[in-house]
Amino acid sequence: MFGKMLEMVRASCPLIHNITNYVTVNDCANILLACGASPIMADDREEVAEITSICGGLNLNIGTLNSRTIASMLIAGRHANDLGHPVVLDPVGVGASKLRTETALRLMEQVRFTVIRGNISEIKTLASGSGNTKGVDANVADKVTEENLNEALGFAKNFARKSGAVLAITGAIDLVTDGTTAYCIRNGHPMMSSVTGTGCQLSAMTAAFVTANPGHPLEAAAAAVSMMGLAGELAHDRLGELDGNASYRNYMIDAIYNMSPDGLEKGANYEVR
Amino acid sequence: MFGKMLEMVRASCPLIHNITNYVTVNDCANILLACGASPIMADDREEVAEITSICGGLNLNIGTLNSRTIASMLIAGRHANDLGHPVVLDPVGVGASKLRTETALRLMEQVRFTVIRGNISEIKTLASGSGNTKGVDANVADKVTEENLNEALGFAKNFARKSGAVLAITGAIDLVTDGTTAYCIRNGHPMMSSVTGTGCQLSAMTAAFVTANPGHPLEAAAAAVSMMGLAGELAHDRLGELDGNASYRNYMIDAIYNMSPDGLEKGANYEVR
Amino acid sequence: MFGKMLEMVRASCPLIHNITNYVTVNDCANILLACGASPIMADDREEVAEITSICGGLNLNIGTLNSRTIASMLIAGRHANDLGHPVVLDPVGVGASKLRTETALRLMEQVRFTVIRGNISEIKTLASGSGNTKGVDANVADKVTEENLNEALGFAKNFARKSGAVLAITGAIDLVTDGTTAYCIRNGHPMMSSVTGTGCQLSAMTAAFVTANPGHPLEAAAAAVSMMGLAGELAHDRLGELDGNASYRNYMIDAIYNMSPDGLEKGANYEVR
Repeated sequence: MFGKMLEMVRASCPLIHNITNYVTVNDCANILLACGASPIMADDREEVAEITSICGGLNLNIGTLNSRTIASMLIAGRHANDLGHPVVLDPVGVGASKLRTETALRLMEQVRFTVIRGNISEIKTLASGSGNTKGVDANVADKVTEENLNEALGFAKNFARKSGAVLAITGAIDLVTDGTTAYCIRNGHPMMSSVTGTGCQLSAMTAAFVTANPGHPLEAAAAAVSMMGLAGELAHDRLGELDGNASYRNYMIDAIYNMSPDGLEKGANYEVR
Repeated sequence: MFGKMLEMVRASCPLIHNITNYVTVNDCANILLACGASPIMADDREEVAEITSICGGLNLNIGTLNSRTIASMLIAGRHANDLGHPVVLDPVGVGASKLRTETALRLMEQVRFTVIRGNISEIKTLASGSGNTKGVDANVADKVTEENLNEALGFAKNFARKSGAVLAITGAIDLVTDGTTAYCIRNGHPMMSSVTGTGCQLSAMTAAFVTANPGHPLEAAAAAVSMMGLAGELAHDRLGELDGNASYRNYMIDAIYNMSPDGLEKGANYEVR
Repeated sequence: MFGKMLEMVRASCPLIHNITNYVTVNDCANILLACGASPIMADDREEVAEITSICGGLNLNIGTLNSRTIASMLIAGRHANDLGHPVVLDPVGVGASKLRTETALRLMEQVRFTVIRGNISEIKTLASGSGNTKGVDANVADKVTEENLNEALGFAKNFARKSGAVLAITGAIDLVTDGTTAYCIRNGHPMMSSVTGTGCQLSAMTAAFVTANPGHPLEAAAAAVSMMGLAGELAHDRLGELDGNASYRNYMIDAIYNMSPDGLEKGANYEVR
């Protein structure tokens, strides 16, 4: 089924509007092209509504937010909602500052997100910040492992239901859930964390997948997550003795570019819970 | 003759001031270094006039424009005109929003451009937006092909004359014209569109070429366009089985770095019309 | 001893707050990860104090400064001082505009820097701008060579004492001094100047080294400078016939990623004067 999702991206070539950080923006653009989508970056409040109108989906990333771009994210997000476009939130570093936390929560209040993608700490911050969780939820560990997987799944499903978004929580084990069904994905490689912005890239790609697969946000997000992890595995296999994280960065995007629907289908490693 | 143009870049090492988007800015800097020029990026209105003064040429790219940088582009552009420095405009995405269209037209009103480089859609938007074209011109197709080449050439020459700039319209066939003479350039590879910012990179490099070859903006721009396309061909030849658009990006800049004047001369594929 | 410094970076994985330019920011993030540190980029005045609080060190780079980020640099720098965190200044292009010069001098007035890293021209501008040098100092050449090394050392030591910061002056020969002791480092390769941002990357890495080695800013900065140069050498050895500056960029970061403390120890080429 993930292969089908990728096929749809390649067939429809969705145009994705990104308001994202300047650290990893180039990689986000290139990974969108690699998976078969097209990127537009635009963050001025005077034009974001129009730009969103000509796109199929929107990706909001608060990695290097500032007062100017926060306003633009709110405008673009609400407009995408009005148009029925899917919107992805990447709450980079939420919890690290009041500005990030407040901005993420404000975005969640004013914009209906199709997918929220972050690591477990970021998602926990969103969950507690928005006053939506209590009990065991608040105690979920900062790393999803085989040992605490059930607990993490409970937390994720609960917050997915409450937020109304598909959650994509990435880490050693990735969890993607709409509150009812959850994909536990075991693709990926630890070395991915030595490359800046693999999360940002995944969020951009997730926006492409949910845009190209209307009506299937859960499966589309899970396919994107699995594809990113699989790219991390294939790129790792390709590393030569002198290669490090810079070459690895390139090899991952290359692997996305070269991945076939069939290759994704066969390489995807997940269970549904 | 293109080889001579490149020789001049390598010999004079022109310093190019870029006010450009944050998506592809790193590649623009590296391609300028690759071709033998030097980059400076500066976009604060308090310093852009001074920075332009110490440079040889200016490259304005509206890819991620905002109110702050629009003001800076106008200041830098007018100042470069006062100093007699060549100025290149890359009207990225013009037509996609009112802000982009108005900004591009305002820049064209207030700044005398040496070269305007864009794809055919962008150039058409400039042409119709600035009220300078009518009749068949307005109907030129959104892709330059062998079939509509004559029509496209007519449009390009007409708008080049009216705008007073050399036009570099890039696509499957590239057209570079000053309104009288036109270079039809058949270098390049379709895979170049799978790398973000090859157009931005070309505009930066074009600024270097016209700066290093005063009095020859047409030939200098054509040489830059041909060199970028040739780099795309050479980089494509170099691709291994596992390489994708990320490696291709690097290989193109590498090819620019390694290209000799003689190699450009021999690899350039164009006709003058 | 340099090997020990690197060991400490790898062992403590310092989190470095960067307020830096958008041209080379991605490479700065990846080189921090390559050496064993972690990057955070944040430049909004509302959050920079908080972000600095959760980090171990701060890196300020004025490469694409603007009024918004200048304010943020001042806030973050003063706050880092209050917290006792090391702060590195990279005065990119100081002297090229009044804004850059004034900003760099204002930063030096209001923030106590642990290390200032720049090329000899930048450091000379700081020295003369801040009214701290005269006599032979003002005449130090714009390139450090074996011939003028003594004179350059005198200048560097003098300004280091007056500024209270360790100076890392990079070029064909690198000088790192606290005013008393100086490391003359002969690592590096001329091709490094064909890659944008090797200086920015070094400044980010220097912040990681001084953060991970409290109490040893001189040795830590010298280790970082030597490691960057050694990476430039190793990356150059690795270049194939078709490789150019883009591949070289990647190979340098790869070399940092793969460098062992022992490899740094053996490859470091310096004398203490």
